[in-house]
Amino acid sequence: MRVLGIHRRSIIAATDQRGIEVIDQRALPHALSIVMLRTAGDVARAIREMLVRGAPLIGVVAAYGLCFAVREDASDAGIEKTYRTLLATRPTAVNLRWALDKMREALLAVPSAERFDAGWSCAQALCDDDVATNFAIGKHGLTLLRSLFDRKSGSRVNVLTHCNAGWIATVDWGTALAPIYMAHDSGMPIHVWVNETRPRNQGALTAWELGQHGVQHTVVVDSAGGHLMQHGLVDMCIVGADRVTARGDVCNKIGTYLKALAARDNGLPFYVALPYPTIDWTVEDGIGSIPIEERDPSEVLSVYGAVDDADPAGPVPPGLNAVDPAGPVPPGLNAVDPAGPVPAARLATPTLRWGSVRPYPAATRAANYAFDVTPAKLITGFITERGITPASREGLRSLYPERVQAP
Amino acid sequence: MRVLGIHRRSIIAATDQRGIEVIDQRALPHALSIVMLRTAGDVARAIREMLVRGAPLIGVVAAYGLCFAVREDASDAGIEKTYRTLLATRPTAVNLRWALDKMREALLAVPSAERFDAGWSCAQALCDDDVATNFAIGKHGLTLLRSLFDRKSGSRVNVLTHCNAGWIATVDWGTALAPIYMAHDSGMPIHVWVNETRPRNQGALTAWELGQHGVQHTVVVDSAGGHLMQHGLVDMCIVGADRVTARGDVCNKIGTYLKALAARDNGLPFYVALPYPTIDWTVEDGIGSIPIEERDPSEVLSVYGAVDDADPAGPVPPGLNAVDPAGPVPPGLNAVDPAGPVPAARLATPTLRWGSVRPYPAATRAANYAFDVTPAKLITGFITERGITPASREGLRSLYPERVQAP
Repeated sequence: MRVLGIHRRSIIAATDQRGIEVIDQRALPHALSIVMLRTAGDVARAIREMLVRGAPLIGVVAAYGLCFAVREDASDAGIEKTYRTLLATRPTAVNLRWALDKMREALLAVPSAERFDAGWSCAQALCDDDVATNFAIGKHGLTLLRSLFDRKSGSRVNVLTHCNAGWIATVDWGTALAPIYMAHDSGMPIHVWVNETRPRNQGALTAWELGQHGVQHTVVVDSAGGHLMQHGLVDMCIVGADRVTARGDVCNKIGTYLKALAARDNGLPFYVALPYPTIDWTVEDGIGSIPIEERDPSEVLSVYGAVDDADPAGPVPPGLNAVDPAGPVPPGLNAVDPAGPVPAARLATPTLRWGSVRPYPAATRAANYAFDVTPAKLITGFITERGITPASREGLRSLYPERVQAP
Repeated sequence: MRVLGIHRRSIIAATDQRGIEVIDQRALPHALSIVMLRTAGDVARAIREMLVRGAPLIGVVAAYGLCFAVREDASDAGIEKTYRTLLATRPTAVNLRWALDKMREALLAVPSAERFDAGWSCAQALCDDDVATNFAIGKHGLTLLRSLFDRKSGSRVNVLTHCNAGWIATVDWGTALAPIYMAHDSGMPIHVWVNETRPRNQGALTAWELGQHGVQHTVVVDSAGGHLMQHGLVDMCIVGADRVTARGDVCNKIGTYLKALAARDNGLPFYVALPYPTIDWTVEDGIGSIPIEERDPSEVLSVYGAVDDADPAGPVPPGLNAVDPAGPVPPGLNAVDPAGPVPAARLATPTLRWGSVRPYPAATRAANYAFDVTPAKLITGFITERGITPASREGLRSLYPERVQAP
């Protein structure tokens, strides 16, 4: 990932193994706010309150959380308790369970005294594995974009994406955005339609990432995708996933299903980029079987962002430079409660204020379903670290033959 | 329409014929702000800046605008000039052209000296006609809801709507919401899923209207409709329209098309409620032929509302009572520039502040397409003042045989 021209990962493990640095995604795109997570409690709150988000990222961050807990209680019972706490932070993404299972297995395999070291190694390996996996996803997805670019005789390629499946949602590269970064780096003219992704506006993260990387992009409301596709303004959709079932149903950010319907109606390719831990081999029917997280209605009823009097027409706030992403963690940041509101001291510029507005009558009720399920029939294919495959049981099994079990 | 338990229309013509009172929809739902429009210039700005919105309403308001212009210049050329100015305020809705055509015809039919009176009578007639038309739409739509209610054996009926096609978008009753108000008044248990309708959050107007009328409702993001339909939480969709082509394609608020796709995918009825002036008999192909208004990207990049520190958890601001909707227009309001920002003096409560937040990096570009087109094939039927009909050329012609012309 590239921030202010410098390459970094979204997780940086402290060399003294006392914590991990993560980026507070709630402060983006207005400030690059680095927070140190030191305990399983820090990690649980950071995931629950979406200081960190993105299916691959929360899996790896949770792995470190389980590791930190071992330092205080290395017993089997202690590990089990923390495992359950961390698993409960977000119910939909399956990467969380996958990473925690890997960690628990590694921890329980060795005596108590060796558990922290074993856990740390396992978490580091999960981190590196995520980067390698996403790099491979990018390379495979790039072949799709190249074919498209050739078919368009070299004119600009337009990709539509929903939510944020970029490097900030992973350890590095991202899933849906990895092919886009590689296409851009290869010199291909590429432009991304960024859905704002209500209610939490993760489109702002995607716009920020793409802007930092120099990729052309335009933000649109979540309702706009159909119109864009009807008018030939989209060549391909690529999204990420929070959970994919064994038969290829895709659970992803609410609204993904509607874009997939529009892509089918307009004869456009709709791809889902995913790493192997996103596949839940135990579930077939995504609509009937995946629990859909319902979050606080206040996320729908209020909109959070920089207060507009902070010079909305001006250049990118210089405060983005205030934290040197490549330097050491400023000591003051370590004391920050990761679950608290973004305190003034962490803001990028003294004049920038955060706030929220409420477009609704005070008594209005809202419902806040965080994800939906796109049936496999609407998906052109999966982009995985092992290659491209149809969105079907057969497609997935052909890439992961080791998962094929006798009936 | 019902506000604070009192019945009123959204336009009230001054008895001295010097202006019309309209509700500043930008101040809703936080304040009932009445503004007097006295000139064609006032009217043009009020439409352009969406102080008034809704296809039927802007048609009638524009009619009064043309009438006011006659008082200053009753010549054919003067009428033509104002006609063009008003027509250009919003390019997509066809009711605007229809109402202005009616007015121009009425004005040009009489000598200059009689034109103001002729125009005023015509505008008043358009007003009354809109109310009668929407009442009839409500009655016809009610039969659909009653059948649904019977099929559900008396359990609650769940309707999903997009944008605002309620009384505030018309002179009275609304289009899509008229059947819902009548169903509620008849004692039917009915609940409405209100799409927030980014970027301008007209869902807040729908939530406010339904709340004032006592109809149960829940706000959801625009992306949620598909999920709700997949899980049996929606029985029927009813939306309004800004323009319907001769073959039944429907141009309506951006995102309508995506909901129609989801309704078809889930086997649910999708109805469009419209009065006859919404039909554009001159256009067949909605996607290819209807100009889609592109509004300022700032509507996407910033979100406007009550600043949240104004007690978001409290009861409906008492200030809604501050303007007596049934009483005379407070004299001070007449001086207000309808196109200016909402000044503090017009706010409901002294502590309530308006503001906007910006979730995006300052340099982010956005596109703001205001409408999309839903092809006729996705629409179960039209609810018009003459009854229910299939969304097709034949369906429309069967209701409006006077429009059938020799090929």
